[in-house]
Amino acid sequence: MVKEGQLKFIGRVESAGELSKVKVFPEFCRGLQHLDDFSYVIIVYWFHVRDNEKERSVLKVVPRRHPSAPEVGVFASRSPSRPNPVGLCVTELLEKKGCILTLKGLDALQNSPIIDIKPYIPRLDSISEAHVPEWTTRRPPT
Amino acid sequence: MVKEGQLKFIGRVESAGELSKVKVFPEFCRGLQHLDDFSYVIIVYWFHVRDNEKERSVLKVVPRRHPSAPEVGVFASRSPSRPNPVGLCVTELLEKKGCILTLKGLDALQNSPIIDIKPYIPRLDSISEAHVPEWTTRRPPT
Repeated sequence: MVKEGQLKFIGRVESAGELSKVKVFPEFCRGLQHLDDFSYVIIVYWFHVRDNEKERSVLKVVPRRHPSAPEVGVFASRSPSRPNPVGLCVTELLEKKGCILTLKGLDALQNSPIIDIKPYIPRLDSISEAHVPEWTTRRPPT
Repeated sequence: MVKEGQLKFIGRVESAGELSKVKVFPEFCRGLQHLDDFSYVIIVYWFHVRDNEKERSVLKVVPRRHPSAPEVGVFASRSPSRPNPVGLCVTELLEKKGCILTLKGLDALQNSPIIDIKPYIPRLDSISEAHVPEWTTRRPPT
């Protein structure tokens, strides 16, 4: 069985903040057509500063920014230190201009490589009643 | 700038159907601790049957299963043919038993490698009012 997969990055975070700019590389830019028919998109990105053996061997974490959170398995957290440094963020798409997206709420650092962009479809992606443990509610996003 | 990333698969889909079984490899199994405090999880997986040059060069698609959908950029679709064959599915976690998860609603094929598992947190992930184009509403999940 195949044990590894190869990603080619399709863009990067040009600037990060309350509003972020994502630049899609010219060779992938045609893939953005009609993306702006959606008001929210899912950005799948690479935690590039955690892409090393030490961070990728983490299996237990104490979620930061959540006071008195218990130690949990890394797959029960959104920690950037994990076997595959893949981040996922639901963001509002404010503007698409050429190969540049302006996004609200992206939690990726500047220069993070982009792996994929997907349209956010509430019928598939929105589960408002999903149950979460109490510690996740104590503070802002992890 | 780095142009590629290396994934190591953490598990695979053992069986697929209305209920699916995902087996996490023993070396990553500790990372599942407390996952079952969440009722929904996000499964990030590899579209292994699309991992070839032809499917990975697709930039425009006509979304299947959506009658009279227009041609759109691949990033405005959930098509498995895309530059990085990374799939994402919000699923209900019915049971965790050792290294095996029983999931409801996973759209991955049998034997699909698993890249990551994340807890679903409505505060971050649920945007019930997100706008979508009309064609996405005409049929079941793409």
